Amino acid sequence: MSKVLVIGAGGVSSVVVQKCAMLPQVFSEIHLASRTLAKCEALQEEAGKDRVVGVYQVDADDAAKVADLIRQVQPSLVINVALPYQDLPIMDACLETGVHYLDTANYEPKDEAKFEYSWQWAYQERFKEKGLMALLGAGFDPGVTNVFTAYAAKHYFDEVQYLDIVDCNGGDHGQAFATNFNPEINIREITQRGKFWENGEWHETDPISVRKDLDYPNVGVRPSYLLFHEELESLVKHFPTLKRARFWMTFGDEYLTHLRVLENVGMTSIHPVQFQGQDIVPLEFLKAVLPNPGSLAEGYTGKTCIGTYVTGIKDGQQKTIFIYNNCDHAETNKEVGAQAVSYTTGVPAMIGAAMMLEGHWMKPGVWNMEQFDPDEFMNRLNQHGLPWHVTECDKPFGA
Amino acid sequence: MSKVLVIGAGGVSSVVVQKCAMLPQVFSEIHLASRTLAKCEALQEEAGKDRVVGVYQVDADDAAKVADLIRQVQPSLVINVALPYQDLPIMDACLETGVHYLDTANYEPKDEAKFEYSWQWAYQERFKEKGLMALLGAGFDPGVTNVFTAYAAKHYFDEVQYLDIVDCNGGDHGQAFATNFNPEINIREITQRGKFWENGEWHETDPISVRKDLDYPNVGVRPSYLLFHEELESLVKHFPTLKRARFWMTFGDEYLTHLRVLENVGMTSIHPVQFQGQDIVPLEFLKAVLPNPGSLAEGYTGKTCIGTYVTGIKDGQQKTIFIYNNCDHAETNKEVGAQAVSYTTGVPAMIGAAMMLEGHWMKPGVWNMEQFDPDEFMNRLNQHGLPWHVTECDKPFGA
Repeated sequence: MSKVLVIGAGGVSSVVVQKCAMLPQVFSEIHLASRTLAKCEALQEEAGKDRVVGVYQVDADDAAKVADLIRQVQPSLVINVALPYQDLPIMDACLETGVHYLDTANYEPKDEAKFEYSWQWAYQERFKEKGLMALLGAGFDPGVTNVFTAYAAKHYFDEVQYLDIVDCNGGDHGQAFATNFNPEINIREITQRGKFWENGEWHETDPISVRKDLDYPNVGVRPSYLLFHEELESLVKHFPTLKRARFWMTFGDEYLTHLRVLENVGMTSIHPVQFQGQDIVPLEFLKAVLPNPGSLAEGYTGKTCIGTYVTGIKDGQQKTIFIYNNCDHAETNKEVGAQAVSYTTGVPAMIGAAMMLEGHWMKPGVWNMEQFDPDEFMNRLNQHGLPWHVTECDKPFGA
Repeated sequence: MSKVLVIGAGGVSSVVVQKCAMLPQVFSEIHLASRTLAKCEALQEEAGKDRVVGVYQVDADDAAKVADLIRQVQPSLVINVALPYQDLPIMDACLETGVHYLDTANYEPKDEAKFEYSWQWAYQERFKEKGLMALLGAGFDPGVTNVFTAYAAKHYFDEVQYLDIVDCNGGDHGQAFATNFNPEINIREITQRGKFWENGEWHETDPISVRKDLDYPNVGVRPSYLLFHEELESLVKHFPTLKRARFWMTFGDEYLTHLRVLENVGMTSIHPVQFQGQDIVPLEFLKAVLPNPGSLAEGYTGKTCIGTYVTGIKDGQQKTIFIYNNCDHAETNKEVGAQAVSYTTGVPAMIGAAMMLEGHWMKPGVWNMEQFDPDEFMNRLNQHGLPWHVTECDKPFGA
């Protein structure tokens, strides 16, 4: 019986809160805080006041304010689904108050698009010393894709060699253009240079310059682009036999065209322009005219398909398997009023929190998902709405 | 020896003022007014204070204020190169004060994209009664294209039957996206439905839905789209033998893609959104991030090609001619610091004004360019920087 404090009240938080609310035997009390109290109140309304027993306004950039809130609420665990910029102050507050920590996306500084674990891994000794645990990247990718990799390594291979994580959103929200999560983070991720691991070192590519047309189960063939994604960093570290590790994401031509045009005309700039007597950041104004990602669920059709291709050696033979989940936008909307991109991130966060609170995954320090035994987590994906499948492939990925 | 008052201080005005300044025997004194005094002062600096002898701030939406200014300056003629929304108040002020009038684009109401002469033609009797002249649409298109048509009808045909006006900007300003004149007017013009005259009636088309790849002299083949353009209305009226009249403008795929994306995301909307505590019109904010059209001249390379294909009967035989001008962005920048789109509009306005002030084209009433004898105007195009050419075509336009 444990109390949790959820920080953040966007689309992912809505899923986390509702899924935690369904498990009172694990999450005895849910508390919810964000910059905007009204958003917390709306989620509280959705999940029920008997389950979400407290809502709070907090500035999560400010570790001291977060620590004050933690002292007031006294949770066992903080589930951080706020912005990636806020990971470090929230970790600081957990250390100060003696509370466990979980997040779904690695810290990145606000003024540069730099996705890496260095800042958070540097907390390892401090968490250990205090007997506290931090579970990093407990969403789908990173998160479930890391667990898929650990599961493959445990059950299917003597040695894992090649890894290709694929993330396909085959859904249609009916809008000419919209991002599935915060447009600012989305645009940072896509416009950075690509990067993959091969033969012991990182190789860079121009943004969105390497394309494969991949066939996704229950979705079909979709153009997929090589991106850097944060789980590559931890997986390469924790599976040192990997000869190559890459990440692929689908983008339609129209989506990329829209992004390119908006970049061209300066609407994605983070440098303010003077307009009607005030400083206006073009990217922030763009956010104001684009659809709110949280509003896309209604009428969103189609499925996501996210998974992990692993090639390795078993009994002296090379083979390839694909472990994946399909998630249907209309079904997740029916269940919790969210589109599948929010759902596939929120459900693993809830499961990760339960794994910690129940002691399945509990050891002091800062950990990535693949560092724990995957089996019970994999069971729970099946129980809580994200069933997965393993197929043995005739040939290696992309061949 | 005549005094003129130029209203408006954008890119076209800069050309008009400099070209008028080169002809002191016609334009004895130039006065210049606009909403922003600093813009007038900058143009005055460019053309010389001995030629631009007065600069003034005026709100051209307000006929009474324009009339006050006219009384103060006492010009023979007002050259209106302000916004199309301001044609009617400036005409009212000319009527009130007894001064001739010239403009380069027809009136359109601010709240709808409706390009037609009805509002201005309704001034016919009032100008006649006062013994005043208004010359409408004295730019290149409308303007020179109307004169080309009149010249063809006078010298090459017994009867004109088919008219295709073509407007190609084969230039490259080196920007990912920019409009060559006020983005708001530009976007209105392009997003309206297409329209052409055939067999005695107007036919509509979807916006940018009819394309021909046309070969322009000294530019090459360019994708060209059927648009409605205002000179079609007056030419069909004044040349009743026309069986068909169309207008074509070139747009690159990239230009159209940019426009489509900006429409899709809502950045071309004229409906305000709430942002940082104020109402902001997306199209106006877009203008603020796009390059100022007046800033494009530097480094702009390539040529425009604007002209008129006329097919008709001469001595019982059908034939087709093409009358056109090429204008080079780098040359016009060298001459007057303006790109060719401003130059090709400003030079005809200066010539039209001279034609009126010297009495070649002077009769009370409201007139379009094709209603006068074209020969002297055509001579002056050659003298003042817009040389034209006539080619006899082997086959009709587009065949």
